[in-house]
Amino acid sequence: MTLIRPTERTTLHRMPQRASYDRALLERILDEALYCHVGLVVDQQPYVLPTIHARAGEQLYLHGSSASRLLAKASAGIPICVTVTILDGLVLARSVYHHSMNYRSVVVLGNAVEVTDQNERLAALKAIVDHVIPGRWNDVRGPSQQELKATRVVRLPLAEASVKIRTGPPIDDENDYGLPCWAGEIPLRLERHSPMPDPRLAPSILVPDYATGGR
Amino acid sequence: MTLIRPTERTTLHRMPQRASYDRALLERILDEALYCHVGLVVDQQPYVLPTIHARAGEQLYLHGSSASRLLAKASAGIPICVTVTILDGLVLARSVYHHSMNYRSVVVLGNAVEVTDQNERLAALKAIVDHVIPGRWNDVRGPSQQELKATRVVRLPLAEASVKIRTGPPIDDENDYGLPCWAGEIPLRLERHSPMPDPRLAPSILVPDYATGGR
Repeated sequence: MTLIRPTERTTLHRMPQRASYDRALLERILDEALYCHVGLVVDQQPYVLPTIHARAGEQLYLHGSSASRLLAKASAGIPICVTVTILDGLVLARSVYHHSMNYRSVVVLGNAVEVTDQNERLAALKAIVDHVIPGRWNDVRGPSQQELKATRVVRLPLAEASVKIRTGPPIDDENDYGLPCWAGEIPLRLERHSPMPDPRLAPSILVPDYATGGR
Repeated sequence: MTLIRPTERTTLHRMPQRASYDRALLERILDEALYCHVGLVVDQQPYVLPTIHARAGEQLYLHGSSASRLLAKASAGIPICVTVTILDGLVLARSVYHHSMNYRSVVVLGNAVEVTDQNERLAALKAIVDHVIPGRWNDVRGPSQQELKATRVVRLPLAEASVKIRTGPPIDDENDYGLPCWAGEIPLRLERHSPMPDPRLAPSILVPDYATGGR
Protein backbone atom coordinates (compact mmCIF):
# COMPACT_ATOMS: atom_id res chain seq x y z
CA MET A 1 0.00 0.00 0.00
CA THR A 2 1.44 3.36 -1.02
CA LEU A 3 0.80 5.99 1.61
CA ILE A 4 0.59 9.74 1.35
CA ARG A 5 2.63 11.31 4.12
CA PRO A 6 0.27 13.08 6.54
CA THR A 7 1.17 16.62 7.48
CA GLU A 8 0.03 18.65 10.46
CA ARG A 9 -2.64 20.14 8.17
CA THR A 10 -3.98 16.82 6.90
CA THR A 11 -3.90 14.89 10.16
CA LEU A 12 -7.37 14.12 11.44
CA HIS A 13 -7.40 14.74 15.16
CA ARG A 14 -11.03 13.83 15.70
CA MET A 15 -12.26 10.34 14.72
CA PRO A 16 -8.83 9.28 13.40
CA GLN A 17 -10.32 5.85 12.64
CA ARG A 18 -12.12 7.51 9.71
CA ALA A 19 -8.90 8.82 8.18
CA SER A 20 -6.82 7.15 5.51
CA TYR A 21 -3.67 8.09 3.61
CA ASP A 22 -3.84 5.17 1.18
CA ARG A 23 -3.00 6.62 -2.23
CA ALA A 24 -4.92 3.97 -4.22
CA LEU A 25 -8.07 4.65 -2.22
CA LEU A 26 -7.64 8.41 -2.63
CA GLU A 27 -7.28 7.96 -6.39
CA ARG A 28 -10.39 5.77 -6.63
CA ILE A 29 -12.49 8.37 -4.83
CA LEU A 30 -11.17 11.20 -7.01
CA ASP A 31 -11.89 9.12 -10.12
CA GLU A 32 -15.42 8.16 -9.10
CA ALA A 33 -16.52 11.67 -8.05
CA LEU A 34 -17.93 13.59 -11.00
CA TYR A 35 -17.03 16.99 -9.61
CA CYS A 36 -15.21 18.67 -6.78
CA HIS A 37 -15.42 21.86 -4.75
CA VAL A 38 -12.47 24.24 -4.96
CA GLY A 39 -11.73 26.64 -2.14
CA LEU A 40 -9.58 29.72 -2.51
CA VAL A 41 -9.16 33.02 -0.73
CA VAL A 42 -9.57 36.52 -2.11
CA ASP A 43 -9.28 39.48 0.28
CA GLN A 44 -9.56 37.20 3.32
CA GLN A 45 -12.89 35.82 2.03
CA PRO A 46 -12.96 32.11 1.17
CA TYR A 47 -14.90 31.08 -1.94
CA VAL A 48 -16.02 27.51 -2.58
CA LEU A 49 -17.03 26.68 -6.12
CA PRO A 50 -18.07 23.44 -7.79
CA THR A 51 -16.10 22.39 -10.85
CA ILE A 52 -15.04 19.32 -12.82
CA HIS A 53 -11.68 17.74 -12.17
CA ALA A 54 -9.60 14.92 -13.51
CA ARG A 55 -6.71 12.98 -12.10
CA ALA A 56 -3.76 11.91 -14.21
CA GLY A 57 -1.19 9.97 -12.23
CA GLU A 58 -0.31 12.03 -9.18
CA GLN A 59 -1.66 15.29 -10.56
CA LEU A 60 -5.11 16.79 -10.31
CA TYR A 61 -6.30 19.01 -13.16
CA LEU A 62 -8.95 21.72 -13.13
CA HIS A 63 -10.05 23.95 -15.96
CA GLY A 64 -12.22 26.89 -16.70
CA SER A 65 -12.56 30.05 -18.70
CA SER A 66 -9.50 32.22 -19.19
CA ALA A 67 -11.81 35.08 -18.24
CA SER A 68 -12.58 33.58 -14.81
CA ARG A 69 -11.07 35.84 -12.16
CA LEU A 70 -11.05 33.16 -9.49
CA LEU A 71 -9.32 30.61 -11.71
CA ALA A 72 -6.75 33.24 -12.65
CA LYS A 73 -6.09 33.78 -8.95
CA ALA A 74 -5.85 30.03 -8.38
CA SER A 75 -3.37 29.59 -11.19
CA ALA A 76 -1.16 32.34 -9.77
CA GLY A 77 0.04 29.97 -7.08
CA ILE A 78 -2.09 30.89 -4.07
CA PRO A 79 -3.03 28.08 -1.66
CA ILE A 80 -6.18 26.22 -2.67
CA CYS A 81 -8.15 23.28 -1.35
CA VAL A 82 -9.90 20.74 -3.54
CA THR A 83 -12.49 18.55 -1.84
CA VAL A 84 -14.56 15.75 -3.31
CA THR A 85 -17.35 14.07 -1.40
CA ILE A 86 -19.32 10.98 -2.39
CA LEU A 87 -22.40 10.50 -0.24
CA ASP A 88 -23.11 6.79 0.28
CA GLY A 89 -25.95 6.77 2.76
CA LEU A 90 -27.93 8.22 5.62
CA VAL A 91 -27.26 6.64 9.00
CA LEU A 92 -30.29 6.54 11.29
CA ALA A 93 -29.37 5.94 14.89
CA ARG A 94 -31.57 5.51 17.95
CA SER A 95 -30.55 8.87 19.33
CA VAL A 96 -30.43 12.22 17.57
CA TYR A 97 -26.78 12.56 18.55
CA HIS A 98 -25.55 9.48 16.71
CA HIS A 99 -27.24 10.20 13.40
CA SER A 100 -24.65 10.39 10.67
CA MET A 101 -23.92 9.93 6.99
CA ASN A 102 -21.83 7.37 5.21
CA TYR A 103 -19.47 9.02 2.78
CA ARG A 104 -16.06 8.98 1.17
CA SER A 105 -14.25 12.29 0.90
CA VAL A 106 -10.85 13.54 -0.19
CA VAL A 107 -9.23 16.83 0.74
CA VAL A 108 -6.22 18.05 -1.25
CA LEU A 109 -4.22 21.08 -0.14
CA GLY A 110 -1.62 22.88 -2.16
CA ASN A 111 -0.70 25.54 -4.63
CA ALA A 112 -1.97 25.19 -8.16
CA VAL A 113 0.03 26.28 -11.18
CA GLU A 114 -1.17 27.11 -14.63
CA VAL A 115 -0.40 24.51 -17.28
CA THR A 116 1.11 26.21 -20.33
CA ASP A 117 2.58 23.29 -22.28
CA GLN A 118 0.13 22.62 -25.13
CA ASN A 119 0.47 18.85 -25.01
CA GLU A 120 -0.15 18.73 -21.28
CA ARG A 121 -3.09 21.12 -21.67
CA LEU A 122 -4.68 18.90 -24.32
CA ALA A 123 -4.04 15.76 -22.27
CA ALA A 124 -5.62 17.42 -19.22
CA LEU A 125 -8.72 18.49 -21.15
CA LYS A 126 -9.07 14.98 -22.57
CA ALA A 127 -8.71 13.55 -19.07
CA ILE A 128 -11.45 15.89 -17.80
CA VAL A 129 -13.92 14.96 -20.57
CA ASP A 130 -13.15 11.24 -20.42
CA HIS A 131 -13.25 11.26 -16.61
CA VAL A 132 -16.96 12.06 -16.74
CA ILE A 133 -17.83 10.09 -19.89
CA PRO A 134 -15.09 7.62 -20.81
CA GLY A 135 -14.48 7.58 -24.55
CA ARG A 136 -16.36 10.78 -25.30
CA TRP A 137 -13.33 12.82 -26.38
CA ASN A 138 -12.72 10.77 -29.51
CA ASP A 139 -16.33 11.09 -30.70
CA VAL A 140 -16.59 14.87 -30.84
CA ARG A 141 -14.88 17.87 -32.39
CA GLY A 142 -11.66 18.72 -30.58
CA PRO A 143 -10.83 22.19 -29.33
CA SER A 144 -9.93 24.91 -31.83
CA GLN A 145 -7.00 27.26 -31.28
CA GLN A 146 -9.46 29.93 -30.20
CA GLU A 147 -11.18 27.61 -27.74
CA LEU A 148 -7.85 26.54 -26.30
CA LYS A 149 -6.94 30.19 -25.82
CA ALA A 150 -10.20 30.76 -23.98
CA THR A 151 -9.49 27.87 -21.58
CA ARG A 152 -7.23 27.92 -18.56
CA VAL A 153 -5.88 24.64 -17.19
CA VAL A 154 -4.36 24.37 -13.74
CA ARG A 155 -2.53 21.55 -12.02
CA LEU A 156 -2.40 20.63 -8.35
CA PRO A 157 -0.07 17.88 -7.14
CA LEU A 158 -1.66 15.10 -5.07
CA ALA A 159 1.05 15.53 -2.46
CA GLU A 160 -0.71 16.84 0.65
CA ALA A 161 -4.03 15.06 0.92
CA SER A 162 -6.20 12.92 3.12
CA VAL A 163 -9.18 10.60 2.82
CA LYS A 164 -12.07 10.45 5.26
CA ILE A 165 -14.58 7.61 5.20
CA ARG A 166 -17.56 6.45 7.20
CA THR A 167 -19.25 3.13 6.45
CA GLY A 168 -21.62 0.76 8.18
CA PRO A 169 -24.57 0.87 10.55
CA PRO A 170 -25.16 3.41 13.31
CA ILE A 171 -23.07 3.15 16.46
CA ASP A 172 -25.52 3.71 19.29
CA ASP A 173 -24.98 4.07 23.00
CA GLU A 174 -25.30 0.64 24.58
CA ASN A 175 -28.27 1.87 26.63
CA ASP A 176 -30.17 2.92 23.50
CA TYR A 177 -30.19 -0.39 21.62
CA GLY A 178 -33.43 -1.40 23.35
CA LEU A 179 -35.34 1.69 22.15
CA PRO A 180 -38.31 0.79 19.95
CA CYS A 181 -37.29 2.93 16.95
CA TRP A 182 -36.04 1.74 13.59
CA ALA A 183 -32.31 2.12 13.00
CA GLY A 184 -30.11 1.42 10.03
CA GLU A 185 -28.76 2.84 6.82
CA ILE A 186 -30.49 4.32 3.79
CA PRO A 187 -28.08 3.85 0.86
CA LEU A 188 -27.75 6.74 -1.58
CA ARG A 189 -26.40 6.59 -5.10
CA LEU A 190 -26.07 9.15 -7.87
CA GLU A 191 -27.85 7.38 -10.74
CA ARG A 192 -27.69 8.08 -14.45
CA HIS A 193 -31.10 8.09 -16.10
CA SER A 194 -32.19 7.63 -19.72
CA PRO A 195 -30.37 10.02 -22.01
CA MET A 196 -32.41 12.91 -23.46
CA PRO A 197 -31.42 13.61 -27.06
CA ASP A 198 -30.76 17.22 -28.03
CA PRO A 199 -33.94 18.52 -29.77
CA ARG A 200 -31.79 19.25 -32.82
CA LEU A 201 -30.27 15.75 -33.00
CA ALA A 202 -30.84 13.89 -36.27
CA PRO A 203 -33.07 10.87 -35.50
CA SER A 204 -30.66 8.58 -37.35
CA ILE A 205 -27.92 9.12 -34.73
CA LEU A 206 -28.00 6.37 -32.13
CA VAL A 207 -27.24 6.76 -28.46
CA PRO A 208 -23.70 5.57 -27.74
CA ASP A 209 -23.14 2.93 -25.06
CA TYR A 210 -21.39 5.38 -22.78
CA ALA A 211 -24.56 7.47 -22.56
CA THR A 212 -26.84 4.59 -21.59
CA GLY A 213 -24.69 2.62 -19.16
CA GLY A 214 -25.40 2.91 -15.47
CA ARG A 215 -22.56 3.97 -13.24
CA MET B 1 -40.41 37.54 -6.12
CA THR B 2 -38.18 38.44 -3.19
CA LEU B 3 -34.65 39.16 -4.30
CA ILE B 4 -31.38 38.94 -2.43
CA ARG B 5 -29.37 42.07 -3.07
CA PRO B 6 -26.28 41.16 -5.12
CA THR B 7 -22.98 42.50 -3.85
CA GLU B 8 -19.73 42.93 -5.74
CA ARG B 9 -18.68 39.55 -4.29
CA THR B 10 -21.81 37.68 -5.37
CA THR B 11 -22.23 39.22 -8.81
CA LEU B 12 -21.58 36.70 -11.56
CA HIS B 13 -19.54 38.43 -14.22
CA ARG B 14 -19.26 35.44 -16.51
CA MET B 15 -22.44 33.80 -17.85
CA PRO B 16 -24.72 36.19 -15.94
CA GLN B 17 -27.70 34.41 -17.52
CA ARG B 18 -26.98 31.51 -15.15
CA ALA B 19 -27.20 33.70 -12.04
CA SER B 20 -30.24 34.26 -9.87
CA TYR B 21 -30.92 36.18 -6.69
CA ASP B 22 -34.44 34.81 -6.19
CA ARG B 23 -34.72 34.04 -2.48
CA ALA B 24 -37.40 31.33 -2.91
CA LEU B 25 -35.24 29.49 -5.44
CA LEU B 26 -32.20 29.77 -3.19
CA GLU B 27 -34.17 28.34 -0.29
CA ARG B 28 -35.47 25.41 -2.35
CA ILE B 29 -31.94 24.47 -3.41
CA LEU B 30 -30.61 24.69 0.16
CA ASP B 31 -33.53 22.57 1.37
CA GLU B 32 -33.13 19.90 -1.30
CA ALA B 33 -29.36 19.51 -0.94
CA LEU B 34 -28.49 16.94 1.73
CA TYR B 35 -25.14 18.47 2.56
CA CYS B 36 -22.94 21.44 1.84
CA HIS B 37 -19.27 22.29 1.63
CA VAL B 38 -17.96 24.88 4.06
CA GLY B 39 -14.87 26.92 3.25
CA LEU B 40 -12.81 28.73 5.84
CA VAL B 41 -9.28 30.01 6.12
CA VAL B 42 -6.62 29.11 8.69
CA ASP B 43 -3.13 30.58 8.29
CA GLN B 44 -3.87 31.67 4.71
CA GLN B 45 -4.81 28.11 3.75
CA PRO B 46 -8.41 27.52 2.69
CA TYR B 47 -10.09 24.34 3.90
CA VAL B 48 -13.25 22.94 2.29
CA LEU B 49 -15.16 20.38 4.30
CA PRO B 50 -18.45 18.57 3.71
CA THR B 51 -21.08 18.88 6.41
CA ILE B 52 -24.84 18.81 6.97
CA HIS B 53 -26.77 22.06 7.07
CA ALA B 54 -30.32 23.18 7.64
CA ARG B 55 -32.16 26.35 6.77
CA ALA B 56 -34.64 27.94 9.13
CA GLY B 57 -36.17 31.07 7.69
CA GLU B 58 -33.35 33.34 6.59
CA GLN B 59 -30.70 31.58 8.66
CA LEU B 60 -28.44 28.69 7.78
CA TYR B 61 -27.33 26.38 10.59
CA LEU B 62 -24.29 24.12 10.77
CA HIS B 63 -23.19 21.91 13.61
CA GLY B 64 -20.35 19.73 14.69
CA SER B 65 -18.28 18.60 17.60
CA SER B 66 -17.29 21.15 20.22
CA ALA B 67 -13.83 19.62 19.85
CA SER B 68 -13.60 20.47 16.15
CA ARG B 69 -10.90 23.10 15.70
CA LEU B 70 -12.20 24.28 12.36
CA LEU B 71 -15.76 24.72 13.62
CA ALA B 72 -14.41 26.63 16.62
CA LYS B 73 -12.63 28.94 14.19
CA ALA B 74 -15.77 29.31 12.10
CA SER B 75 -17.88 30.20 15.11
CA ALA B 76 -15.40 32.89 16.15
CA GLY B 77 -16.70 35.14 13.40
CA ILE B 78 -14.18 34.68 10.61
CA PRO B 79 -15.49 34.87 7.02
CA ILE B 80 -16.78 31.58 5.70
CA CYS B 81 -18.39 30.35 2.50
CA VAL B 82 -21.10 27.72 2.35
CA THR B 83 -21.74 26.14 -1.04
CA VAL B 84 -24.32 23.54 -2.01
CA THR B 85 -24.38 21.91 -5.41
CA ILE B 86 -27.03 19.64 -6.86
CA LEU B 87 -25.86 17.87 -9.98
CA ASP B 88 -28.77 17.39 -12.42
CA GLY B 89 -27.12 16.03 -15.52
CA LEU B 90 -24.22 15.66 -17.89
CA VAL B 91 -24.42 17.77 -21.03
CA LEU B 92 -22.88 16.14 -24.09
CA ALA B 93 -22.20 18.62 -26.85
CA ARG B 94 -20.84 18.08 -30.34
CA SER B 95 -17.55 19.72 -29.46
CA VAL B 96 -15.31 19.12 -26.48
CA TYR B 97 -15.49 22.80 -25.64
CA HIS B 98 -19.26 22.95 -25.12
CA HIS B 99 -19.53 19.94 -22.84
CA SER B 100 -21.06 20.97 -19.56
CA MET B 101 -23.11 19.88 -16.59
CA ASN B 102 -26.61 20.83 -15.53
CA TYR B 103 -26.67 21.85 -11.90
CA ARG B 104 -28.16 24.11 -9.28
CA SER B 105 -25.76 25.68 -6.82
CA VAL B 106 -25.91 28.22 -4.02
CA VAL B 107 -23.01 30.18 -2.57
CA VAL B 108 -23.45 31.96 0.76
CA LEU B 109 -20.79 34.32 2.08
CA GLY B 110 -20.63 35.75 5.56
CA ASN B 111 -19.47 35.49 9.11
CA ALA B 112 -20.88 32.72 11.24
CA VAL B 113 -21.60 33.13 14.93
CA GLU B 114 -21.97 30.47 17.56
CA VAL B 115 -25.51 29.85 18.76
CA THR B 116 -25.57 29.84 22.56
CA ASP B 117 -29.29 30.13 23.33
CA GLN B 118 -30.43 26.62 24.30
CA ASN B 119 -33.81 26.87 22.59
CA GLU B 120 -32.27 28.05 19.35
CA ARG B 121 -29.63 25.34 19.60
CA LEU B 122 -32.27 22.63 20.00
CA ALA B 123 -34.37 24.06 17.18
CA ALA B 124 -31.31 24.13 14.93
CA LEU B 125 -30.40 20.52 15.71
CA LYS B 126 -33.99 19.46 15.05
CA ALA B 127 -33.95 21.35 11.76
CA ILE B 128 -30.72 19.58 10.76
CA VAL B 129 -32.06 16.08 11.52
CA ASP B 130 -35.48 16.73 9.98
CA HIS B 131 -33.91 18.40 6.94
CA VAL B 132 -32.37 15.08 5.94
CA ILE B 133 -35.17 12.79 7.17
CA PRO B 134 -38.39 14.73 7.82
CA GLY B 135 -40.06 13.54 11.02
CA ARG B 136 -37.08 11.62 12.36
CA TRP B 137 -36.43 13.86 15.37
CA ASN B 138 -39.63 12.88 17.13
CA ASP B 139 -38.97 9.14 16.76
CA VAL B 140 -35.62 8.95 18.54
CA ARG B 141 -34.00 9.84 21.83
CA GLY B 142 -33.27 13.54 22.09
CA PRO B 143 -29.89 14.96 23.06
CA SER B 144 -28.71 14.67 26.66
CA GLN B 145 -27.10 17.60 28.45
CA GLN B 146 -23.71 15.99 27.88
CA GLU B 147 -24.38 15.54 24.16
CA LEU B 148 -25.54 19.14 23.87
CA LYS B 149 -22.34 20.27 25.54
CA ALA B 150 -20.32 18.24 23.05
CA THR B 151 -22.08 19.89 20.09
CA ARG B 152 -21.38 23.30 18.63
CA VAL B 153 -24.06 25.04 16.55
CA VAL B 154 -23.28 27.98 14.31
CA ARG B 155 -25.53 30.31 12.36
CA LEU B 156 -24.90 32.10 9.10
CA PRO B 157 -27.41 34.65 7.79
CA LEU B 158 -28.66 34.14 4.23
CA ALA B 159 -27.88 37.75 3.45
CA GLU B 160 -25.06 37.68 0.89
CA ALA B 161 -25.75 34.83 -1.46
CA SER B 162 -26.25 33.84 -5.07
CA VAL B 163 -27.70 31.01 -7.10
CA LYS B 164 -26.17 29.58 -10.25
CA ILE B 165 -28.11 27.25 -12.52
CA ARG B 166 -27.63 25.51 -15.83
CA THR B 167 -30.45 23.56 -17.45
CA GLY B 168 -31.31 22.22 -20.87
CA PRO B 169 -29.56 20.71 -23.85
CA PRO B 170 -26.07 21.54 -25.09
CA ILE B 171 -25.53 24.84 -26.87
CA ASP B 172 -23.34 24.02 -29.81
CA ASP B 173 -21.66 26.23 -32.35
CA GLU B 174 -23.98 26.58 -35.33
CA ASN B 175 -21.37 24.94 -37.56
CA ASP B 176 -21.24 21.84 -35.38
CA TYR B 177 -24.92 20.85 -35.44
CA GLY B 178 -24.35 18.76 -38.56
CA LEU B 179 -21.65 16.60 -36.97
CA PRO B 180 -22.61 12.90 -36.82
CA CYS B 181 -22.16 12.48 -33.04
CA TRP B 182 -24.85 12.00 -30.43
CA ALA B 183 -25.64 15.04 -28.31
CA GLY B 184 -27.97 15.59 -25.40
CA GLU B 185 -28.30 15.33 -21.69
CA ILE B 186 -27.81 12.41 -19.27
CA PRO B 187 -29.95 13.17 -16.23
CA LEU B 188 -28.46 12.43 -12.81
CA ARG B 189 -30.32 11.98 -9.56
CA LEU B 190 -29.25 11.05 -6.06
CA GLU B 191 -31.53 8.10 -5.33
CA ARG B 192 -32.42 6.54 -2.00
CA HIS B 193 -32.26 2.74 -2.07
CA SER B 194 -33.87 0.09 0.15
CA PRO B 195 -33.08 0.70 3.80
CA MET B 196 -30.64 -1.69 5.47
CA PRO B 197 -31.67 -2.45 9.04
CA ASP B 198 -29.05 -2.23 11.75
CA PRO B 199 -27.83 -5.81 12.45
CA ARG B 200 -28.91 -5.30 16.05
CA LEU B 201 -32.45 -4.14 15.18
CA ALA B 202 -35.27 -6.21 16.69
CA PRO B 203 -37.11 -7.92 13.79
CA SER B 204 -40.45 -6.70 15.14
CA ILE B 205 -39.57 -3.05 14.42
CA LEU B 206 -40.94 -2.01 11.06
CA VAL B 207 -39.30 0.38 8.63
CA PRO B 208 -40.93 3.83 8.92
CA ASP B 209 -42.31 5.49 5.80
CA TYR B 210 -39.65 8.18 5.83
CA ALA B 211 -36.95 5.53 5.36
CA THR B 212 -38.56 3.87 2.36
CA GLY B 213 -39.86 6.82 0.35
CA GLY B 214 -37.98 7.93 -2.70
CA ARG B 215 -36.89 11.50 -2.84
